[in-house]
Amino acid sequence: MNSFGSRLRYSTFGESHGVAIGCLLDGVPAGLKIDEAFIQSELDRRKPGKSEFETARKEDDKVEILSGTFEGYSTGTPIAMLIYNTNQKSKDYSNIKDIFRPGHADFTYFHKYGIRDYRGGGRSSARETAARVAAGAIAKLMLNELSIEVKSGISEVAGIKADIFDYESAKESIIYALDASKESAQKAAILKAKNSHDSVGGVSRIIIKNAPIGLGQPLYYKLDGVLADAMMGLNAVKAVEIGDGILSASIEGSQNNDEIRADGFKTNHSGGVLGGISNGEDIILNVYFKPTPSIFKEQETVTTTNKEVNFSLKGRHDPCVAIRGSIVCEAMAALVIADMLLLNMGSTMSGIKKYY
Amino acid sequence: MNSFGSRLRYSTFGESHGVAIGCLLDGVPAGLKIDEAFIQSELDRRKPGKSEFETARKEDDKVEILSGTFEGYSTGTPIAMLIYNTNQKSKDYSNIKDIFRPGHADFTYFHKYGIRDYRGGGRSSARETAARVAAGAIAKLMLNELSIEVKSGISEVAGIKADIFDYESAKESIIYALDASKESAQKAAILKAKNSHDSVGGVSRIIIKNAPIGLGQPLYYKLDGVLADAMMGLNAVKAVEIGDGILSASIEGSQNNDEIRADGFKTNHSGGVLGGISNGEDIILNVYFKPTPSIFKEQETVTTTNKEVNFSLKGRHDPCVAIRGSIVCEAMAALVIADMLLLNMGSTMSGIKKYY
Amino acid sequence: MNSFGSRLRYSTFGESHGVAIGCLLDGVPAGLKIDEAFIQSELDRRKPGKSEFETARKEDDKVEILSGTFEGYSTGTPIAMLIYNTNQKSKDYSNIKDIFRPGHADFTYFHKYGIRDYRGGGRSSARETAARVAAGAIAKLMLNELSIEVKSGISEVAGIKADIFDYESAKESIIYALDASKESAQKAAILKAKNSHDSVGGVSRIIIKNAPIGLGQPLYYKLDGVLADAMMGLNAVKAVEIGDGILSASIEGSQNNDEIRADGFKTNHSGGVLGGISNGEDIILNVYFKPTPSIFKEQETVTTTNKEVNFSLKGRHDPCVAIRGSIVCEAMAALVIADMLLLNMGSTMSGIKKYY
Amino acid sequence: MNSFGSRLRYSTFGESHGVAIGCLLDGVPAGLKIDEAFIQSELDRRKPGKSEFETARKEDDKVEILSGTFEGYSTGTPIAMLIYNTNQKSKDYSNIKDIFRPGHADFTYFHKYGIRDYRGGGRSSARETAARVAAGAIAKLMLNELSIEVKSGISEVAGIKADIFDYESAKESIIYALDASKESAQKAAILKAKNSHDSVGGVSRIIIKNAPIGLGQPLYYKLDGVLADAMMGLNAVKAVEIGDGILSASIEGSQNNDEIRADGFKTNHSGGVLGGISNGEDIILNVYFKPTPSIFKEQETVTTTNKEVNFSLKGRHDPCVAIRGSIVCEAMAALVIADMLLLNMGSTMSGIKKYY
Repeated sequence: MNSFGSRLRYSTFGESHGVAIGCLLDGVPAGLKIDEAFIQSELDRRKPGKSEFETARKEDDKVEILSGTFEGYSTGTPIAMLIYNTNQKSKDYSNIKDIFRPGHADFTYFHKYGIRDYRGGGRSSARETAARVAAGAIAKLMLNELSIEVKSGISEVAGIKADIFDYESAKESIIYALDASKESAQKAAILKAKNSHDSVGGVSRIIIKNAPIGLGQPLYYKLDGVLADAMMGLNAVKAVEIGDGILSASIEGSQNNDEIRADGFKTNHSGGVLGGISNGEDIILNVYFKPTPSIFKEQETVTTTNKEVNFSLKGRHDPCVAIRGSIVCEAMAALVIADMLLLNMGSTMSGIKKYY
Repeated sequence: MNSFGSRLRYSTFGESHGVAIGCLLDGVPAGLKIDEAFIQSELDRRKPGKSEFETARKEDDKVEILSGTFEGYSTGTPIAMLIYNTNQKSKDYSNIKDIFRPGHADFTYFHKYGIRDYRGGGRSSARETAARVAAGAIAKLMLNELSIEVKSGISEVAGIKADIFDYESAKESIIYALDASKESAQKAAILKAKNSHDSVGGVSRIIIKNAPIGLGQPLYYKLDGVLADAMMGLNAVKAVEIGDGILSASIEGSQNNDEIRADGFKTNHSGGVLGGISNGEDIILNVYFKPTPSIFKEQETVTTTNKEVNFSLKGRHDPCVAIRGSIVCEAMAALVIADMLLLNMGSTMSGIKKYY
Repeated sequence: MNSFGSRLRYSTFGESHGVAIGCLLDGVPAGLKIDEAFIQSELDRRKPGKSEFETARKEDDKVEILSGTFEGYSTGTPIAMLIYNTNQKSKDYSNIKDIFRPGHADFTYFHKYGIRDYRGGGRSSARETAARVAAGAIAKLMLNELSIEVKSGISEVAGIKADIFDYESAKESIIYALDASKESAQKAAILKAKNSHDSVGGVSRIIIKNAPIGLGQPLYYKLDGVLADAMMGLNAVKAVEIGDGILSASIEGSQNNDEIRADGFKTNHSGGVLGGISNGEDIILNVYFKPTPSIFKEQETVTTTNKEVNFSLKGRHDPCVAIRGSIVCEAMAALVIADMLLLNMGSTMSGIKKYY
Repeated sequence: MNSFGSRLRYSTFGESHGVAIGCLLDGVPAGLKIDEAFIQSELDRRKPGKSEFETARKEDDKVEILSGTFEGYSTGTPIAMLIYNTNQKSKDYSNIKDIFRPGHADFTYFHKYGIRDYRGGGRSSARETAARVAAGAIAKLMLNELSIEVKSGISEVAGIKADIFDYESAKESIIYALDASKESAQKAAILKAKNSHDSVGGVSRIIIKNAPIGLGQPLYYKLDGVLADAMMGLNAVKAVEIGDGILSASIEGSQNNDEIRADGFKTNHSGGVLGGISNGEDIILNVYFKPTPSIFKEQETVTTTNKEVNFSLKGRHDPCVAIRGSIVCEAMAALVIADMLLLNMGSTMSGIKKYY
């Protein structure tokens, strides 16, 4: 339930204002060099408090590996990683103790479980995604040895869309903007919302380069299906699109089909997936994030005893969750691809005979 | 791999031009009245050849229950259902034996497995979805006893969008159109494409009414994540959207949050899901289908030995897969909701004590 | 729930007196030659009615493959197999309709599900094991290509124990006796019980030869743990032993340890498993079957409304379930080994790089 | 792979001489009072160094809960628990760095993974079972609220068998002896082996009282099958027996069947399980442990480069692993029963309607 993946399986635990968050990554092949500095650098990309476009909560997000490695290499046993919470301000949340914040999971957790850790959203806080990034970093180390790359960037903020998708420039941008020419407008939109005590939505675009043909199982553990689950399962995500996605639904087959030549596909409308299986082209996803539900404007809601109240949220929040979310999308994509790579081994008798 | 679901788990088998297709549904609670006429009526809604808007392949799709029932009721043991293939015209496919049809899974299956049942797409054919509909019908019988309803309709064809979503009128429409005022334009678009040897994309909209609060597990078997996987895993689906979805990404938090009053949510931008858990509102999904890749226009492709060829497809195909796909979306939604209902039992000690 | 295995997963369905029984085998690698005659020959080894040592119910147990193969080879898609029930005599069971047979699952199914298919035990009948044997036969075909063998025989009947374990002579024995010198005494014990309207227990011994080192996952999908589940899950099995098993518990470490020389282990007390992982030696299991609970002697029991009755069972039953059970143990062992082989791929980065 | 359970799922991590060991317990129902003192007291029962009958390695085994609780109650989110390793003496193991200890997993881990944490056996050390006991303690807290009890004791050491099974006196015994009249002989056997640099095997007996009828899924997640996996998966376990088990295989059906009267079963030869489902009687298991493979007598083995050597092990080891193993068996039994309880909810439509 708090786990994901089949052959490479990770589980996370922890609450926003508990002792620590962490993850358990099971199925990592033995003999992988575990570059701890790289894992930390991935966490640093996601960590909060780096700029005015993010929440002011500062967390070091120092990751500690507890198991599964020996003399710098993975041993095939589960890798547990821990990140202590250091900058909790639980008292920020005393005012929401008995209140369901609109757009948050407060209402559903309370009704499902009859009890809820209200401090910072507890388990439902996006803070949990730090653990995903740690797990994803190890998946990336594994993919890296096979020359597979996972990249991401922000393609849209508050309706302002990128025309070009430059993943290298996105790395340098504080808001991970894919289109440098749109970056200042996108930043302005974020600050405008923030200054009016509001928030904005955005879109993250993910690309996976150099994945081999054959990833994905038919018909119920499809590459695109599992990626959709991985992304839709992220806080605030409300839509997921593969390749031309939404556009595909409004055009004709002759426009949408990718014709094939001896040296490969002529186009990549499909986003690298045919029949749920990778076709060797770039795998491309768009992930749509709603605006941060935590806003400071006054809102109507009810208490846990169903009394109507008006309230204004306090605390520290990202004005646009898509931005840091983009790094989490990368991690999820890396985890899915690594899982599919492992599952794909054993698809043919000839492959098995080569192995044994 | 060919299974879906956790506590209610179904598996399908069969190829388009093999002996039969079928499914195995495991975890159905005992004591459910198995209304075979209803199951057949659901299959009839999906079955091909009912109109000019669908493939001309006629299949009776008569379903046979092999196990798991006794004197008309489920016994708690797995329910196997079989649908014999009767109208295969395998020779239609002899011309694609060595050719990868653009937009199809031919290329990926061949490269993944080194062997491929080319007749009608084999396992990757949408024919497999008849088995999903059979399983979904049993899920619906179960949901029905709890007054939960799953409905669907076509909201968009070839860019022509519904303004109103009338699920009752959709039932009467031969193309399951949600907006009767757009139906004739949508039909015309389909026929225009068909007559020009082409195809069109479309969007199916699914609604789940009366689901209890609390469905969905945190954080990795979320209701929206699993629904996204279920839908994205369908042939030709390229995007999935929950609630306001794509729109959410371009607006502000104050516009997107659903405020709460004592008698419920004021709006339903969220599509009935908060933090991956149902909130008691209607659960709403949009599923974006690409145009049928099978078109009769000449296309460029390669053979299994990578020779470039131009070819025109023959055979019988739906000009717009979204239409019959809509019935499959319903089935998938019913299966997911039923699975989540079963999983939700045991969420609290008080619930467990009430049970035992 | 009605499935077994991780990477090679099979599911069974069907009741003793229903339309058919069958199985779905998922994860078979593509390109495996599917020798249908071999599959049938395995079913013939298990099928009832071959001698006076077995139930008189005659079933052809003709297996039909519905999917997953193409031109004689597996395609990587799920293989469904069907065996129609032809010789049901449901009226034999009308007298147990309202009665719980001692030693059977009647009592537990009724109380768990509130409904029960009483005809021949319904789902809980050992008839279901025909489907396991069909699935196991395909696993054997796969293992055969890797020179791995799975064999079995009867080592004990009614306390009469084999001193030698000759798997080749067991194949020729009508009761699969491993020790030809004990066969007539074992047969006599069976007939004596049968003639006094009783039944006897027995022990099946299974050996797996030539399995590679490394099968089994640490620490919760161990080779020996999964084999124990596979065997204990068979009807009438009450104990499972690996290697010297029970004896090990009463001796000293210096007697029980298998010392190692350059050319291998000096002894095989461990039964081929160390730390849950195969060590390259023969894998050896003993499986203890209770006597058939179906006996014709008068017994005390209650009805479904808890009325006390004395009754004598009718119908057709094996006097010693261990005998045909031995063939099922073989099938289960083959399925477990094949599953573990597939899972083992991807254990090391060097193996992965060799593959991709 | 490093996880166990279906609806209540736990995962463990950590190596004998790493930073820490721990576990993640997922699926605990919300609203369970988490009695930390009880969890610690269970760990104290298993912890080493309490007497001359155990290893001299002293570990405090202080458990720390990192997540999943709020104000003393479970919240429905995963509970992570951590136990730091404090008394590692890794240098004890420098002499086995390049040597495969007979009877240990050194050989198989090295060949499977190509790398091995040799310090104290790394992951394969029985130290990992402390994490199981922590998880099992929470399962016991849950079972306790339903009045279900899990108990254990030692029924046999070095061939010296208990005649009576007194679980209360076992609690008071330093070797958890079930039969006080055999305790001194059993202790003497342990010390005799220890003093001669050897070790002894033993048998743990587990009883589960007051489990409801209906636990266990047909036919592949059976209560007895899963218990067998749970127990056989423990280090040093070589056989598992349910009820009369091994004896059943040598007697007649009329002796072995449990007849039924209006007030229950007349006998309990079955050990509380019929058809894989609990029948309301005591569930009884015997678990056979081999002697500790770590002995100080000189043994023959090979190095990682396959050089033959004679060596005598150093370090600190239990002379009879069955004793502390018995506490682990209890924990595993509690986890299995709790998992089965949760899975059982939803078996019938009438139960579901009562719930929703």
